[in-house]
Amino acid sequence: MVTTELRRDPITGRSVVIDLSPLHPNDFDDGVASGFSRSSEVTEVEAACAFCEGREGEAGPELLAWREGSHTNTPGWSVRVVANRRPMLRIEGGLDRRIDGVFETRDGLGAHEVVIETPVHDQPLQNLPVDRLWRVLWAWRTRLQDLKQDARFATAIVFKNHGRAAGARMDHAHSQIAAYPIVPAALDEKVRGAAAHLGHTGHCIFCDMTEQGLRDGRRTVSDTLPVIAITPFASRVPFETWLMPGDHAARFDEASDATLEAMSVVLKDVMARVDWALGRPAYNLVLHTAPFSGDADLAFHWHLEVIPRVTRWSGLEWGTGIPRNPVSPEEAARVLRGVKPVGPDL
Amino acid sequence: MVTTELRRDPITGRSVVIDLSPLHPNDFDDGVASGFSRSSEVTEVEAACAFCEGREGEAGPELLAWREGSHTNTPGWSVRVVANRRPMLRIEGGLDRRIDGVFETRDGLGAHEVVIETPVHDQPLQNLPVDRLWRVLWAWRTRLQDLKQDARFATAIVFKNHGRAAGARMDHAHSQIAAYPIVPAALDEKVRGAAAHLGHTGHCIFCDMTEQGLRDGRRTVSDTLPVIAITPFASRVPFETWLMPGDHAARFDEASDATLEAMSVVLKDVMARVDWALGRPAYNLVLHTAPFSGDADLAFHWHLEVIPRVTRWSGLEWGTGIPRNPVSPEEAARVLRGVKPVGPDL
Repeated sequence: MVTTELRRDPITGRSVVIDLSPLHPNDFDDGVASGFSRSSEVTEVEAACAFCEGREGEAGPELLAWREGSHTNTPGWSVRVVANRRPMLRIEGGLDRRIDGVFETRDGLGAHEVVIETPVHDQPLQNLPVDRLWRVLWAWRTRLQDLKQDARFATAIVFKNHGRAAGARMDHAHSQIAAYPIVPAALDEKVRGAAAHLGHTGHCIFCDMTEQGLRDGRRTVSDTLPVIAITPFASRVPFETWLMPGDHAARFDEASDATLEAMSVVLKDVMARVDWALGRPAYNLVLHTAPFSGDADLAFHWHLEVIPRVTRWSGLEWGTGIPRNPVSPEEAARVLRGVKPVGPDL
Repeated sequence: MVTTELRRDPITGRSVVIDLSPLHPNDFDDGVASGFSRSSEVTEVEAACAFCEGREGEAGPELLAWREGSHTNTPGWSVRVVANRRPMLRIEGGLDRRIDGVFETRDGLGAHEVVIETPVHDQPLQNLPVDRLWRVLWAWRTRLQDLKQDARFATAIVFKNHGRAAGARMDHAHSQIAAYPIVPAALDEKVRGAAAHLGHTGHCIFCDMTEQGLRDGRRTVSDTLPVIAITPFASRVPFETWLMPGDHAARFDEASDATLEAMSVVLKDVMARVDWALGRPAYNLVLHTAPFSGDADLAFHWHLEVIPRVTRWSGLEWGTGIPRNPVSPEEAARVLRGVKPVGPDL
């Protein structure tokens, strides 16, 4: 069993999840520690994929599934949510901080779930028909609604790794949901920035940004309400694209069925354009929704980040936190708008 | 010629360097944009490595070199510093910010230099003898002293990419120096955290952290003064190791020859241990020294981060900013301390 703790960096205040399992001497027999990969080739044995239909027992008991008549934990589902078998955070634990001089630690408390997006092994999310893609978004929304009930959790984040270069260890299409006892730094800095903008102007910064962006039009990929797609002004990677409601909405877990249906259409369209432009790249998805406590509802605006992984984080980004993006978002949006992909998938 | 600008993210305030060059239609002939790699195989043609001795004209005029009798820009050097041929930031430009509604931009002003660490193509930094490694540190120090004279620059950061997984595009051993008109986020959050700790306690947080860590000893790799090596309490990746002066020192550019000599010995030793433990991994180095303006001298403490790249940044890290580290720093230090590498290089 993996035990983890959340440690606070004494200089920056940032958190890290540290795995406390000991390394064993024979992890080093060939000079390479196990527990992480040093090569892009390392992967699970695909012949025994636990996410495929018919292996429900291996993936674990379902927390949620889209089924039409079949029994729980048997075949006959289109989307299935289970607990992560190697969870980064566990639901057992408390909120206490342990302080030892300058060092601060707390339990690795939280939730870590896997959304198996399709029963079919070799079917990327973006190739699903729109109504199946909708069920994935429905699973995200339903699980967020449930996790929100646990008063120990401050927020939850949905993310997806597609392809080895994006950190995926399994080929079978899946996304992950992580709930945290704190608001993680990447979300927290958006929440704080948004709150400051609200304080200065009375407006949501996401609304102001998209309104100004849509008027200018150069970073617009899709402007059809209710869900728009833009390349952000300060894009960190080539072809970074954000999908978000055109009208103010803080919480994905409160999105209507109609909004999620529109989202499915736009996500499938954007991914087809990205796949064409970049040759089916590895990518991450990140869903940011307002923290569970109610006080960010005026300031924050939910959005889904599409992050193609065609550049590598180097010592530059580690050392500065300032990414170098070799393609401007204006160029990326121009290319994405111009693409008219056609094919059997669409 | 590459033109870039620094853009400010309107939500978080973070900066990004954006390349403004247009993409051309035939960048997309095969559905793949050029200007960045989508594959780990893409690299410069090594047969024509511009960093090798005898090709000084291709690498460009030298800003600095370690020579014993030979002429500038000819063979006969052991370390050579040139301007980056595809600079991310340029010394031409001003400090003005351009504000357009919620969007803020400034010139891609700065410096971007390459330190060619050896004239020999296939010689990793860590395989250099200690006195040659010292010359690389000497080159970093000398260039930082020079860049500090330009009042437009707020700070400079040294970084190194070794191996494709660490973002290196050239195999020939080199590091890079980037000077910025602002203090980049990754350094700025350390400077702010250190200033807050100084305000609360009157102490340097780095000194407090290492003193407490050395007393405990579980994260110590090397405790021989004047330069110590530790695995940080909140390590972000397996076997992350920091080298730093044991006694308080804010600025690498003010380090003595003796300190740099000790640093060379410790760096070579630590890298031999890391190479053994992880099978010669790709890695980054990051040197953080106090910003050029004098007000961080009591709070800040220079340090060199060794960042083995054996894990991948996934949607988890993008979405949360909370890395998941599968090896605790205590385990990593235990392994690194136990290693007694021997070999012709040492």
